[in-house]
Amino acid sequence: MIKPRLFRGFRDYPPEEMLPREKLIEHIKHIFHRYGFVPLETPAIEYVDVLLGKYGSEGEKLIYRLAYKDGNTLALRYDLTVPLARFYAMNYTHLPLPFRRYQIEKVWRAEHAQMTRGRFREFYQCDVDIVGAFPPLPDAELISLINDALSDIGFHRFIIKTSHRKFLPEFLRYAGIERPSELEVARVVDKLDRLGKEDVVIELEKLGLSARQIDKLFDILDISGEPDEVIDRLSSLLGERISGICGEMKRFFDMVSSFGVPKEKLVFDLSLMRGLDYYTGIVFEAYLPDFPDIGSLAGGGRYDNLVGLFMNRSVPATGTTIGVDRILTAMRRSEIVLKDEDVAKVFFALFDKGSVDYVLSIVSHLRREGIPVELAGKLCSLKENIQTAAKKNYRYLLIAGGDEKSKAVVAVRDLKTREQKEFTVSELVKWGKGLC
Amino acid sequence: MIKPRLFRGFRDYPPEEMLPREKLIEHIKHIFHRYGFVPLETPAIEYVDVLLGKYGSEGEKLIYRLAYKDGNTLALRYDLTVPLARFYAMNYTHLPLPFRRYQIEKVWRAEHAQMTRGRFREFYQCDVDIVGAFPPLPDAELISLINDALSDIGFHRFIIKTSHRKFLPEFLRYAGIERPSELEVARVVDKLDRLGKEDVVIELEKLGLSARQIDKLFDILDISGEPDEVIDRLSSLLGERISGICGEMKRFFDMVSSFGVPKEKLVFDLSLMRGLDYYTGIVFEAYLPDFPDIGSLAGGGRYDNLVGLFMNRSVPATGTTIGVDRILTAMRRSEIVLKDEDVAKVFFALFDKGSVDYVLSIVSHLRREGIPVELAGKLCSLKENIQTAAKKNYRYLLIAGGDEKSKAVVAVRDLKTREQKEFTVSELVKWGKGLC
Repeated sequence: MIKPRLFRGFRDYPPEEMLPREKLIEHIKHIFHRYGFVPLETPAIEYVDVLLGKYGSEGEKLIYRLAYKDGNTLALRYDLTVPLARFYAMNYTHLPLPFRRYQIEKVWRAEHAQMTRGRFREFYQCDVDIVGAFPPLPDAELISLINDALSDIGFHRFIIKTSHRKFLPEFLRYAGIERPSELEVARVVDKLDRLGKEDVVIELEKLGLSARQIDKLFDILDISGEPDEVIDRLSSLLGERISGICGEMKRFFDMVSSFGVPKEKLVFDLSLMRGLDYYTGIVFEAYLPDFPDIGSLAGGGRYDNLVGLFMNRSVPATGTTIGVDRILTAMRRSEIVLKDEDVAKVFFALFDKGSVDYVLSIVSHLRREGIPVELAGKLCSLKENIQTAAKKNYRYLLIAGGDEKSKAVVAVRDLKTREQKEFTVSELVKWGKGLC
Repeated sequence: MIKPRLFRGFRDYPPEEMLPREKLIEHIKHIFHRYGFVPLETPAIEYVDVLLGKYGSEGEKLIYRLAYKDGNTLALRYDLTVPLARFYAMNYTHLPLPFRRYQIEKVWRAEHAQMTRGRFREFYQCDVDIVGAFPPLPDAELISLINDALSDIGFHRFIIKTSHRKFLPEFLRYAGIERPSELEVARVVDKLDRLGKEDVVIELEKLGLSARQIDKLFDILDISGEPDEVIDRLSSLLGERISGICGEMKRFFDMVSSFGVPKEKLVFDLSLMRGLDYYTGIVFEAYLPDFPDIGSLAGGGRYDNLVGLFMNRSVPATGTTIGVDRILTAMRRSEIVLKDEDVAKVFFALFDKGSVDYVLSIVSHLRREGIPVELAGKLCSLKENIQTAAKKNYRYLLIAGGDEKSKAVVAVRDLKTREQKEFTVSELVKWGKGLC
């Protein structure tokens, strides 16, 4: 016997998890369509060199390679953004500009699996990107999209934090920090939410920053308030050098507001950093303040240099990932349920040999009318049929034995109320349509 | 620069291919739901030993292995049936019986890629299976499902060939063939449709069969007609030994007919073999006689021993694969189009700086009303906006410059008829809803 088992960090999605997941993805797709995005899929397997040099050295270690040919040739994709850049570079001559695509597929990372904390080695990404358009209009449109998606699902209290990747070097310059690197400082600052200021200060000290440097850094990171206010205070501290970035942020906030995103949902958060190497401009993340431990439900930003790696020409781009798994967790905790799933509520019993043909023809008729019905898998006692239907959580049991066949009717038993009624076939169709 | 490229045998699915594909998959899912099937997904990566020993030696050579840990540990799945068996064995204690699941995901095979002939190394499988129920009821239900799926798509002329895996050893015994093995003979006979009888005879001779053996084999393979007739003639040739199998086929055909599958769609074809090692009972394949070169649109059968490999206990099972790619090819050739795709028909121009806020708020309003709209990616001349919309195949261009803003209207230009009309925002919403 072969022991049936899964590799650590991988999971099956059984039906009870697939049904809400499919419903959510369908919902998200509708929003994407409304915004004029079209679907794209790319292969799971890419050439290794297509993937390398984009995620940072920590990320690259997590790429699964194939043992096909030599192990340096092929690998499983790590995200959907690099494959998009590769696709764009291969097809840009006949793609309409700007190219707006979404992609919902699995990605693979050889992470240290922590399944109880929801860290898996295979997971869905749900990405939407706009390639070939300059900031800040597409960036603002993505904020509007995130706002629509989360509101429509039924989340009322959420915030979208935004910042700009080009601020950080200016912050470091202001604080007199030349080393360690931007990315090292960013990685520590990124933990502010999770660790709190005190611990972040300790970690910054470990990086070799002086108390004075850390104080000056927090002069800036502590700034908070309305976007306009933040921009004014930043400008007064950092002067002309950041006027370009501030102007872009200002126009961005104006557009986000024209799109109707409520002011209280938007936070200009200077400590927002985003991990991946390829971001170059406006970045953003959406959170539920009620469930800070879930992390960001959506996040993304501008990456104007990534596509250029494949075509020696700069191509502006921005995008966001919608965290399907995290949203499902948050929905469960908030007791939000999307519209009923399109699955069978009706189980048709099989217990009388003489009426099998009658049952089969009615099952078939109901299904052709669009009514979902599960037919019992075998002929057995009515009691056994009831047990099976109950175990499968069906509400209604349809019964057609010799009596019903001779009267050309079907009995419908409500397994909850235990009421039972007889219907002619046309009444049954009408009743069934009412269920859907 | 990194050269953007794809590994041979792999392909991107660009939007123009994704849209009909998604529509078809949605259609197939509806049919699955109607039959009471629920979705399952399993990981792309499985332990190698979970996959080996099920596909035959030819199949096993095509399994992609990972270079993770040692190359003998992990591999990409080859199909969705073996992962289902593995899942069932791991979860059977809490699965309702019979377990009816569908799974629509990609699989990977290191095939000799022939992309012009549609043979890729990564492709979708769309599988539906019933585990834990004996023949012939579930098998008949799958025939009904295939019939519904193909009819509903719009195919009128198709045939479903069926046979039984257990016939072959009896055929060989009748013909006095002891060697080569069943599977070798099956593989050659399977080519009858493609090569014709003459070439198949030559190949059988190459396998070492005598003229008399081949003649006797074709005494049986040449039998054709109504199911009842075929069964009678088979019984008279092979006698009692096949009465069990014939009885199962007879009950199967009766049930298929009770499900309302038209008689002329069903063929009892003794030369139908099906490639994979794991089949044990009734097998079937659906074809379009008008496009024989496309091959089978759906096919499957009973595999009562596969699940048992993972749990030392026999578990009856049957299933079918729906060939999404082949169906799409057949739809294109038959000029069948499924109901309109849910994508934007409306492109909103951006050409006047002073009315950007006005445009953004209307775009947002339309989308929240459920109307798909693509917003121009940048401010540019009206002419450029028209060119972009035309390149993206949009029918309607929405225009709101200073004039429209001051009048609180939006102009809608039909890019086909070149007519232009002005709408208030509420009229616009009404018009937009009429488009969907």
